[in-house]
Amino acid sequence: MTRSIGVLDPPIRLLCGTGPTNPDPRVLRAMAAPVLGQFDPAFTAIMEDVMALGRYVFRTSNTRTFAVSGTGRGGMEAAIASLVEPGDSVLVGTCGRFGDLFVDLATRYGGRVSQVTAEWGQVLDPQQIDEWLKRAPAKVVAVVHGETSTGMLQPQLGEIGRICRERGALLLVDAVVTLGGVPVEVDGWQIDMCTSGTQKCVGCPSGMAPITYNDRAEQTIASRKSPVISNYFDLTQIQRYWNPERLNHHTLPTSMTYGLREALRLIVEEGLEARWARHQRTGDALKTGLQAMGIELFGDPRHRLPMITGMFIPEGVSDEAARARLLEQFGIEVATSFGPLRGRLWRIGTMGYNAELKTVLTVLTGLERVFQSFGVKSDRGAGVVAAEKAYHSAARG
Amino acid sequence: MTRSIGVLDPPIRLLCGTGPTNPDPRVLRAMAAPVLGQFDPAFTAIMEDVMALGRYVFRTSNTRTFAVSGTGRGGMEAAIASLVEPGDSVLVGTCGRFGDLFVDLATRYGGRVSQVTAEWGQVLDPQQIDEWLKRAPAKVVAVVHGETSTGMLQPQLGEIGRICRERGALLLVDAVVTLGGVPVEVDGWQIDMCTSGTQKCVGCPSGMAPITYNDRAEQTIASRKSPVISNYFDLTQIQRYWNPERLNHHTLPTSMTYGLREALRLIVEEGLEARWARHQRTGDALKTGLQAMGIELFGDPRHRLPMITGMFIPEGVSDEAARARLLEQFGIEVATSFGPLRGRLWRIGTMGYNAELKTVLTVLTGLERVFQSFGVKSDRGAGVVAAEKAYHSAARG
Repeated sequence: MTRSIGVLDPPIRLLCGTGPTNPDPRVLRAMAAPVLGQFDPAFTAIMEDVMALGRYVFRTSNTRTFAVSGTGRGGMEAAIASLVEPGDSVLVGTCGRFGDLFVDLATRYGGRVSQVTAEWGQVLDPQQIDEWLKRAPAKVVAVVHGETSTGMLQPQLGEIGRICRERGALLLVDAVVTLGGVPVEVDGWQIDMCTSGTQKCVGCPSGMAPITYNDRAEQTIASRKSPVISNYFDLTQIQRYWNPERLNHHTLPTSMTYGLREALRLIVEEGLEARWARHQRTGDALKTGLQAMGIELFGDPRHRLPMITGMFIPEGVSDEAARARLLEQFGIEVATSFGPLRGRLWRIGTMGYNAELKTVLTVLTGLERVFQSFGVKSDRGAGVVAAEKAYHSAARG
Repeated sequence: MTRSIGVLDPPIRLLCGTGPTNPDPRVLRAMAAPVLGQFDPAFTAIMEDVMALGRYVFRTSNTRTFAVSGTGRGGMEAAIASLVEPGDSVLVGTCGRFGDLFVDLATRYGGRVSQVTAEWGQVLDPQQIDEWLKRAPAKVVAVVHGETSTGMLQPQLGEIGRICRERGALLLVDAVVTLGGVPVEVDGWQIDMCTSGTQKCVGCPSGMAPITYNDRAEQTIASRKSPVISNYFDLTQIQRYWNPERLNHHTLPTSMTYGLREALRLIVEEGLEARWARHQRTGDALKTGLQAMGIELFGDPRHRLPMITGMFIPEGVSDEAARARLLEQFGIEVATSFGPLRGRLWRIGTMGYNAELKTVLTVLTGLERVFQSFGVKSDRGAGVVAAEKAYHSAARG
């Protein structure tokens, strides 16, 4: 070694970017529990727990409910790799970066990909999908429920589900940012396959991807003409591992599985409805506070995600330098943006454990001080007062 | 929820299967450290540490030394997915289950796969590879360094490296079970790409896959005619994330990265040479003890892995029932086998933190008691005494 590498000593941050978020301390404690072998009955019981808890959180009775051993992107790839064969027609709804990722994945796996699109900051109209499918049937329709890149929540997934069912397409939904934060009704909305991630509203570190799919999706995969190209993401194999058969595939990440179990258990303890309300209340308070500071929000106000708030960087404030000050002086992380929005927009996450008023007040205070340091004029404390008021009035219902 | 799911409470096991092994408690403590955002300078510094530590452990100066965000299987898939294009000629050396996995992966990604083989329990002769390459050039030669399925260590990797260089092939090596346990000389043996896993001799929970590759491998990937099919395992993208450029790809599993850093740091503290000697001494003591109990070992005695010991199940002992007794009565996990060896062979791992005499003595005691419960006659305590003697005489050098 040419340099000495010391004890691990990460500082405590308030993670208000787009994920990872700060996990509940109980999740980190669970991850430090003794490691078990993957076929130990004590461990396979933990896998069964994760499946049962996952069904509650996804609002589904799907037998096939487990987690892929990769990040959210890995879950999306497992879905596409398993559903899409070379030459299959795939329709992707795109209005941000994760729609683009579906396009990239489906193209890589040989799909003939079409797109219905909306501007970044807008959402899709289900009628666009219906009209497209009327003209050209698709095997898979892939839609992003919450576009982390723009802070938009796709509404009417149930209507999209109805259309897909009627037109003979499978509906695949990316719920990476929404699961555990807003309603995700897998069975109620006729979603055939739904994938998520652990490090956002589920409230666990990054590294696994909860997934669920129904019999239609399973049968579609089972009747493929060609084998799945990826071995690691081959759901036909992974589902035999998350199953009494316990096919030896990969070695499940033990500690991550512990963390995911505890994170899901925390969701059950709180109750999904209470958790959705908490995320909504917190996101609304942040938006109210930002506006009271004179900051302009991004995107269609009818469809803003509660857990990711997109805000324009005020005139005169340097993106990178301001985020560095926020991190150094306040220990707060917020996220910049990608593509057309880079340097113009920040995204503030209030997810999982951090979806609390105290997060909002800390962030607003930090933003006010940092923006002032760049010469932005504002009414001192206005954001905090407005956010507090909005939060408490929502909490009183 | 139809059933209540309680607090996570895994029992403490002595993990002597084929992985996961018990991590050093320092590794689990590191994993409970506060989570950082993936572009936080404090986190990218940790990524740099992992790269530097990885170079020490792989014995390489390769710039491209990092970890894939999947298990050992994910690392193997990243290697094949990135190196192999449809139609490429791939030569795999197979003498066990992980050679078969290379064949499966290369076939899935469109390679024209040939094999040189040895019986399970034997190793490959480098001359087989040389003769094959003389007749039919290959783009990639894939070899398993330690066959976990049989307990065999492939010797003469340096000779295979020399042959591959001479014949214009890239040498890809699976060092999942060997890294951190026996010499793995990436630069010295002219290995072009080498992949590993975290949960064996590296001594961290499962979930990441250390990988390293040289300029030849990088240039081969860069000059592909077709894009890599997998997005998640596309090394052209991942290497731009593990790099000052910090391309946004997936969100690195934060806690796993902490654990891997601490596990690698423990290897540096101990020193590779001392760690190799400890694994050898421990494996030899276990083998000596088993033989003193009248148990027959599997495979070519010249090429047995120190960290995985294959032993025939004594006559009259039921594979599953005996392993269950060992787990319940002693808290010891050992592994059964796959394919042709299932039900005939157990594999006992002494890896990382568990590569110590006390592990051997505990395992031998448990085995003796359990085998006796099946009516096997043996000289009481003979295994323990022989193992202790062998260990101490090796330690004295």
